[in-house]
Amino acid sequence: MLYLDNAATTPLHPKALEAMMPYFTEFFANPSSVYAPAQKVRAAVGEARQSIADAIGAERDEIFFTSGGTEADNWAIKGVLDSRGGHIITSSVEHHGVLYVFEHLKKQGFEVTYLPVDTEGLVDPASLEEAIRPDTRLISVIFANNEVGSIQPIKELGAIANQHGIPFHTDAVQAVGHLPIDVKALGIDMLALSAHKFYGPKGIGALYVKRGTKLAPVLHGGAQENNRRAGTENVTGIIGMAAALRASLDEMPGEFTRVSALRDRLINEILEKIPHTKLNGATGEKRLPGNVNISFSFIEGELFLSHLSMNDCCVSTGSACSSNAHEPSHVLMAMGLDSVLANCAIRFSLGRVNTEADITNLMSILQPTAEKLLKQSVLYDMHLKNKR
Amino acid sequence: MLYLDNAATTPLHPKALEAMMPYFTEFFANPSSVYAPAQKVRAAVGEARQSIADAIGAERDEIFFTSGGTEADNWAIKGVLDSRGGHIITSSVEHHGVLYVFEHLKKQGFEVTYLPVDTEGLVDPASLEEAIRPDTRLISVIFANNEVGSIQPIKELGAIANQHGIPFHTDAVQAVGHLPIDVKALGIDMLALSAHKFYGPKGIGALYVKRGTKLAPVLHGGAQENNRRAGTENVTGIIGMAAALRASLDEMPGEFTRVSALRDRLINEILEKIPHTKLNGATGEKRLPGNVNISFSFIEGELFLSHLSMNDCCVSTGSACSSNAHEPSHVLMAMGLDSVLANCAIRFSLGRVNTEADITNLMSILQPTAEKLLKQSVLYDMHLKNKR
Repeated sequence: MLYLDNAATTPLHPKALEAMMPYFTEFFANPSSVYAPAQKVRAAVGEARQSIADAIGAERDEIFFTSGGTEADNWAIKGVLDSRGGHIITSSVEHHGVLYVFEHLKKQGFEVTYLPVDTEGLVDPASLEEAIRPDTRLISVIFANNEVGSIQPIKELGAIANQHGIPFHTDAVQAVGHLPIDVKALGIDMLALSAHKFYGPKGIGALYVKRGTKLAPVLHGGAQENNRRAGTENVTGIIGMAAALRASLDEMPGEFTRVSALRDRLINEILEKIPHTKLNGATGEKRLPGNVNISFSFIEGELFLSHLSMNDCCVSTGSACSSNAHEPSHVLMAMGLDSVLANCAIRFSLGRVNTEADITNLMSILQPTAEKLLKQSVLYDMHLKNKR
Repeated sequence: MLYLDNAATTPLHPKALEAMMPYFTEFFANPSSVYAPAQKVRAAVGEARQSIADAIGAERDEIFFTSGGTEADNWAIKGVLDSRGGHIITSSVEHHGVLYVFEHLKKQGFEVTYLPVDTEGLVDPASLEEAIRPDTRLISVIFANNEVGSIQPIKELGAIANQHGIPFHTDAVQAVGHLPIDVKALGIDMLALSAHKFYGPKGIGALYVKRGTKLAPVLHGGAQENNRRAGTENVTGIIGMAAALRASLDEMPGEFTRVSALRDRLINEILEKIPHTKLNGATGEKRLPGNVNISFSFIEGELFLSHLSMNDCCVSTGSACSSNAHEPSHVLMAMGLDSVLANCAIRFSLGRVNTEADITNLMSILQPTAEKLLKQSVLYDMHLKNKR
């Protein structure tokens, strides 16, 4: 299996599994209980919280565990708003975990501004400044896009939000563990992260909430998470997430450079060797180290995917979460692609287990497959006839 | 360690861990992806869903995975209500995962009826019939109480709700895996369950939603869970939960009788051998097989707990979720105990790993500890002086 879909999910880091195992067996107590074995579990949860706080420049009491990135995004956005209603701002290239919350809120009566992006998928900070109104209650902009890997100018956006005293949330699900992040330096009030995107387990995430941010709970019940998020703690998930994030940070100095080089090699080889290809998104420092998004003109993405899948190649047309929905990507459309080119996009996302050999192997499958599908393409045939 | 706090959480069933392990390592793909390895994971999630449906007499498409019992309760209750407001009914002995949702909704303008309970902690179905109004939108009654183990007359309550066409939700977190449950026969529209209460992992639960029940999503985002609960599936959690529930059902015929007998032995020995003790809750078939809740008059519960903890005995004063809150239990108060007797309650909860030897060992610690603490008790001293 050639796994090149690390933006959909990552294989669990061996250190994460190792850290989790004792809490599946010996240390199973409920951390809210009072006896000694429970205190040990409670202490381990506290250490994990500290470790995650350290990883993003936060304080321990600013980290709240959730069931994943989607819950963290939902909580951040819904929790800061109240019955006054008002105006809320997001970008046009959000993950569905933010986008559909905004659409829901729009139906509830909130006014929404979707900031446009340029052809590289980037928001212009000036457009945020212009969009702000006296009744703007929240700004939420994705840190790095899940489809095309474009990294937003978060520091500039955060500074503008801070100046106006408007809570600033960022969905950093694709960024945490892959990019250095300091929430204080970046002016971030809330940040969502998800363990399984950085070699942690599925079903666990966290929300960073800056001290002083008014955030109402959305899950009511027990007194867990300092009375702000009810429900027995997912102890093994929390411990696995912290171990995975520590490992990712330890490996980041080398991995960032190594994976970025793999990415650039793959981009260059595709653009050079396969005709009618176009890179979607930004280049260099403005792109996630593992993200490659290419439109293969005239080849329908879903069809390409199924042929690659038959060759044991795991890649994606875009977001895994919407892969059953056959609509053109809202991200690529926002970047100005037409729906035909948007439907021809394939995302390759590289990670810590990928090697130079993977790129070589991928190209050996990609090139003949693209060639074959291009020959069979009705669209390409029409294109050739039109040219003549 | 003498672990007698299975109502707080249970040790993971070895079969659950065994079922989970391959999905931490080899089968890590995102079930929403399209390639073959992801299809395998998706199929396993589907089998787990079927298995959980079978366990409670539901259909596969009526089971929705959540992060636990609290999320399931929150979703069921908030999801059926809408902007019309109206009247909602619950019992006075709910877990905080339901109780605090109702308190939140009360602040939002809903009118709430809390059904009273008798001295055994049981709701009278006639009181439900009386409470129903034309604008009643929801009835939510706990299946079996987490503190005193009283099993509500769910079938009678369900029949009344069904007759009036009012959605009927039950928090069955303490019941599933321990009692036979058939949602159709019991007239249940929604049912919340949590894996870690029946030897599954923490951080995973499910909500049963009868077909045709109008339930809005509360987590917006990806298309998972048939577009009703967004977020990448907690694959290992789901598979572990299904395996644990299957194992619990397989073991239930023998375990129900065995654990009930341990329970009755412990109740009888405490009441016989330790003076000034009182059983809280119902007896026999109306009580969860593993639950023993005793008030040790004149001995403050928290103090008793700490002495038992020093002797490696893991028990609880009530709900683990509120064990940091030093208020008398709302459940015991609703059953008519005064706050002094409510503060003297200790919950012992037995499970599959407990044995006759555990009861013998517990009694050998409990009896001298109670004797010692009674001698030191100021309350007992006052009581003796008053008697003279």
